[in-house]
Amino acid sequence: MIDVGPSAAGPAGAARSEDDRGTLGPFPDLSGIKFDSQGLVPCIVQEWSTGEVLMLAYMSEESLRRTFETGTTWFYSRSRAELWNKGVTSGHFQRVRELRYDCDGDTLLALVEQTGAACHTGDFTCFDGRWLSPPAGERPPFLSRPER
Amino acid sequence: MIDVGPSAAGPAGAARSEDDRGTLGPFPDLSGIKFDSQGLVPCIVQEWSTGEVLMLAYMSEESLRRTFETGTTWFYSRSRAELWNKGVTSGHFQRVRELRYDCDGDTLLALVEQTGAACHTGDFTCFDGRWLSPPAGERPPFLSRPER
Repeated sequence: MIDVGPSAAGPAGAARSEDDRGTLGPFPDLSGIKFDSQGLVPCIVQEWSTGEVLMLAYMSEESLRRTFETGTTWFYSRSRAELWNKGVTSGHFQRVRELRYDCDGDTLLALVEQTGAACHTGDFTCFDGRWLSPPAGERPPFLSRPER
Repeated sequence: MIDVGPSAAGPAGAARSEDDRGTLGPFPDLSGIKFDSQGLVPCIVQEWSTGEVLMLAYMSEESLRRTFETGTTWFYSRSRAELWNKGVTSGHFQRVRELRYDCDGDTLLALVEQTGAACHTGDFTCFDGRWLSPPAGERPPFLSRPER
């Protein structure tokens, strides 16, 4: 845990980033993580409280480093070829509670507390209301949040 | 819903596949799905009842076709370069309740009823017990299942 002292004044998003710095713990050994040929690994993002899957994005070693430093999600955008801190323009940051990896070391799972909405459309998750199959006609039992 | 008549006799796994045939509905229009240069799209698999994220795997158009035909998950293995029906050797099939896609059309989310364990290690999920960050020290609120 890094002691950053009193939070610098600034916009809400920036202040939050400062406050949470270091909350994800020391930067880990990444030798068990298999980055692809572009140096990326997919990261599933799931809401800590409700269990909803919010989105899938890609992380590089540098985006992982910034995620650990700030306690909020940083990804690598393949289309824009740049790092991005989710929420930096919308204020909809994702505070990371846990970062897990799978048995093969080729997928990450971030359990986060989502501020606002995860999807750029304004939907809470990127999977809201988009079915390939017919909807099941009932809500998954784990999902306790009221309808939005 | 396709009426397939009385189930053909056979091994438990095959019988289940037969029984569930067509439960995922008619094969959908895939024009909104962005397959990558290898013709694949990542699919997040989540347990219908508990909300646990079980695994990430890749689907091709043909694996999607078989998923709709059988009501169980079919993926494309990039390492073995072949289609596989999850559970066909272990008996640990995944019955698909809903298949969703995201706002960009480049990720799928399958909500499934997992038989047995999802992970080849015997863990219920591929993310069980594997942390990059320190564990949060409490269980996510959505997760109602008892400790295993």
